[in-house]
Amino acid sequence: MIKARGYAAHNNCSGLVPFSFEREEPQGGEILIEILYCGICHADIHQYKNDYGSTQYPFVPGHEIIGRVKETGKGATNYKKGDWVGVGYFIGSCGHCTNCLNQEEQFCENGILPTQNGKLPDGSITMGGYTDCIVVHENYVFAIHPKLRKPEAAPLLCAGVTTYCAFQHNQIRKGHKVAIIGLGGLGHMAVKFAVSFGAEVSVLSSSYSKEQSSKDLGAHNFIITTNQAAVNAASERFDFIIDTVSALHNYNMYMRLLKRDGTFVVLGIPSENPKLDLRLLTSHRRKITGSFVGSIEQTKDMLDYCVQNNITADVEVIPPDYINTAYERMRKNDVKYRFVIDMKNL
Amino acid sequence: MIKARGYAAHNNCSGLVPFSFEREEPQGGEILIEILYCGICHADIHQYKNDYGSTQYPFVPGHEIIGRVKETGKGATNYKKGDWVGVGYFIGSCGHCTNCLNQEEQFCENGILPTQNGKLPDGSITMGGYTDCIVVHENYVFAIHPKLRKPEAAPLLCAGVTTYCAFQHNQIRKGHKVAIIGLGGLGHMAVKFAVSFGAEVSVLSSSYSKEQSSKDLGAHNFIITTNQAAVNAASERFDFIIDTVSALHNYNMYMRLLKRDGTFVVLGIPSENPKLDLRLLTSHRRKITGSFVGSIEQTKDMLDYCVQNNITADVEVIPPDYINTAYERMRKNDVKYRFVIDMKNL
Repeated sequence: MIKARGYAAHNNCSGLVPFSFEREEPQGGEILIEILYCGICHADIHQYKNDYGSTQYPFVPGHEIIGRVKETGKGATNYKKGDWVGVGYFIGSCGHCTNCLNQEEQFCENGILPTQNGKLPDGSITMGGYTDCIVVHENYVFAIHPKLRKPEAAPLLCAGVTTYCAFQHNQIRKGHKVAIIGLGGLGHMAVKFAVSFGAEVSVLSSSYSKEQSSKDLGAHNFIITTNQAAVNAASERFDFIIDTVSALHNYNMYMRLLKRDGTFVVLGIPSENPKLDLRLLTSHRRKITGSFVGSIEQTKDMLDYCVQNNITADVEVIPPDYINTAYERMRKNDVKYRFVIDMKNL
Repeated sequence: MIKARGYAAHNNCSGLVPFSFEREEPQGGEILIEILYCGICHADIHQYKNDYGSTQYPFVPGHEIIGRVKETGKGATNYKKGDWVGVGYFIGSCGHCTNCLNQEEQFCENGILPTQNGKLPDGSITMGGYTDCIVVHENYVFAIHPKLRKPEAAPLLCAGVTTYCAFQHNQIRKGHKVAIIGLGGLGHMAVKFAVSFGAEVSVLSSSYSKEQSSKDLGAHNFIITTNQAAVNAASERFDFIIDTVSALHNYNMYMRLLKRDGTFVVLGIPSENPKLDLRLLTSHRRKITGSFVGSIEQTKDMLDYCVQNNITADVEVIPPDYINTAYERMRKNDVKYRFVIDMKNL
């Protein structure tokens, strides 16, 4: 067994505290990774709070992992000791269902194995990346190119691939008018990708404080959503809206901003189901769809694209004992745009 | 002026009563049509009840019109006296907006002119097809091929084109598994079209009484939605679901029956906005979209397709003084599948 140290929540209210546990030695095809950085995703907070009702405690969050290979198990041949690698939202899938065979294993019909709070066949629970090491099958490990800055690359493994796939799957390209709702971890990556694809990019936000930030990220327009006249002026303007907000909000107001045949892509999930006015779909043949992280191949494509286009996340690096403060600040949207934990002071 | 006789509602509760009024003589490009048959659409009842809050009384419904050309106005050259013709949901559009220029005039950015309860520039209201005649610009009139049975062709002008366009726009073809929710005017046309396109067709209904009817229409499967086990067994089965029901229902239950990347097409609009579980979109990258009647060209395509494939609606022909009874029966879903008014006893 491998001794591991990290941060865990023992319940949904006492915060995360230092935690020691053991990980299995790497088996066939598996790799032991020394974790150096791990991003903090909103899903970590939702699971800590047990908002989805499925959290098993002690809960070790973390699925935006960057580290170096420390040891390779028997049959693991893709990486060697010292390689920079990354791990994302899931570390297993069945491999034989239709979706897995179609290289869409994020939609594995038998259920993916999430990096955190995932249930293993023996009933034990996966412990995520807020730790000093992790053991993962090499098929679910990504090479991190030397040109990609660390720790700024960590959020690419979830926020990056989630937004990238939303653009790629919906074929959002140069010439499209795209609106991004929300300018957090996902939103700021969405702006960077949209700009890099050559789209005309508008950020929609309820806070004027996001106007300069949007422009700094390369967005062409900013629309303040508390001003009904400004919103009305954007009626039927967009080909695509990428919605990264997970708090409940007025979907119908935004839907009106889509052109005929426009597409609304849901990335954030509110805890309460929103009421949707279906006339907004029939009257302009609009679509609502969603996207969820990405497949292994799509994640590799995304990382290659980021190397070629010099894209990483904007991050605030924090020590492990700042995690609870970071969670508090994220609840107030007080982060530009992703916290990344530096494990060196663990 | 032309004297017209028909049936109108003077308010939202007293039923439809015989009504005489005057129509303008055909102007440039317009045609006077002697109406012989008119289908009864659920939208007629909704507007009679003022469910959309925009009904102007006296209200003359009717937008599934079949008749013969009685007189052609100056410059109307497409039709001659005696030709069988049809009129559908709208009789005008601006002609110069992006959607009109793209032959998508059903989505006219300046608003279509509906055949019934539409507002003309002079403030007067369009009177629909529950009458003995109507005057329409020839650009919004359709030739009805001699091979198309009358009155069975009348519902093609709304129920037919609405369902046909949902299939065509979403490229539903042979090899697709398609579910149809609701077996009324739209639903039975959806089954006929889906079968003719070579799809594997399932009807989803809460009533066992629809099982034999579904098979009679050519559907391959029937799923009773009151049996949770039967519904669960169809989980992730369909490429497309065509929802023709306009009463509020459990959209989330049906969404689960779509495969990854499956599409839910809304044709019926409930009066209350449904709560949608957006996780059902993100988790399988499903889509919800809508469709609304069809363009002039699409309607012509649909009529040609119906001639080639011998498709018309299944109708119950009624005299005009049966309209109120028909409305009552429609509220109880007691019709197979469309009432069509025969105007000869008007």
